[in-house]
Amino acid sequence: MEQRISLITLGVADVARATAFYKRMGWKPAESPPEITFFQAGGSIFSLYGREALAVDAGVATETSDKSASVVLAFNARSKEEVDAVLAEARDAGAEITKPAEDTFWGGYSGCFADPDGHLWEIAWNPHFAILENGSIRLPE
Amino acid sequence: MEQRISLITLGVADVARATAFYKRMGWKPAESPPEITFFQAGGSIFSLYGREALAVDAGVATETSDKSASVVLAFNARSKEEVDAVLAEARDAGAEITKPAEDTFWGGYSGCFADPDGHLWEIAWNPHFAILENGSIRLPE
Repeated sequence: MEQRISLITLGVADVARATAFYKRMGWKPAESPPEITFFQAGGSIFSLYGREALAVDAGVATETSDKSASVVLAFNARSKEEVDAVLAEARDAGAEITKPAEDTFWGGYSGCFADPDGHLWEIAWNPHFAILENGSIRLPE
Repeated sequence: MEQRISLITLGVADVARATAFYKRMGWKPAESPPEITFFQAGGSIFSLYGREALAVDAGVATETSDKSASVVLAFNARSKEEVDAVLAEARDAGAEITKPAEDTFWGGYSGCFADPDGHLWEIAWNPHFAILENGSIRLPE
């Protein structure tokens, strides 16, 4: 696993309200569908997404959980094979795989794990977001 | 507020255990005191810090709260004046100031706010971490 964080996603109660707050802070969102807002933040991406949807995507919206997720960090890999390799590395390092890797509805491939404190990571291959040589990630212009 | 995230800090139960996990994932920590671990992560810094200490620093360890914080994002400003300006901007945008800006024991100046969903941000001036022209932040070599 390269030592970088591609996305920081905050789980929010209302994406429009949260987006309005960050716009008041001077942040400019990229073109985004209504259910998620993406901001280019230096070499990473900052995003706002519904807490319940975030929990479903991370594989932690079970019968016994509170069905919401507060924050998910993402590492975007350069290939599907790298996604599998990083998830295997995480499992071997003691992480709990919360969602095995699978093809996603948005045309990518991703899986998720929880670190020993329950912090969630998505390991993703996303053909829509460019990863530069130095590991920076870029939203489409 | 420039559109970037300087630090992503995870609140953990045991810094040594959490650090060991990320080392098993192949991450190399910078020289860090035992109570906090810093990793250079692209143009940002990833850090692991005790959940209770993180809550105290963010000003949310009150009698009524659970006295722990899960994640704090930080924006490192280029001056103390910029810290004050960003916190004022946040307050005007509807954030709750959880810790007014003050000089810190580590020789910096910082304050914290909670966004409308309760996500915590520290706005800091830290003379020990260089901020490059493009907004990237660098741990000391």
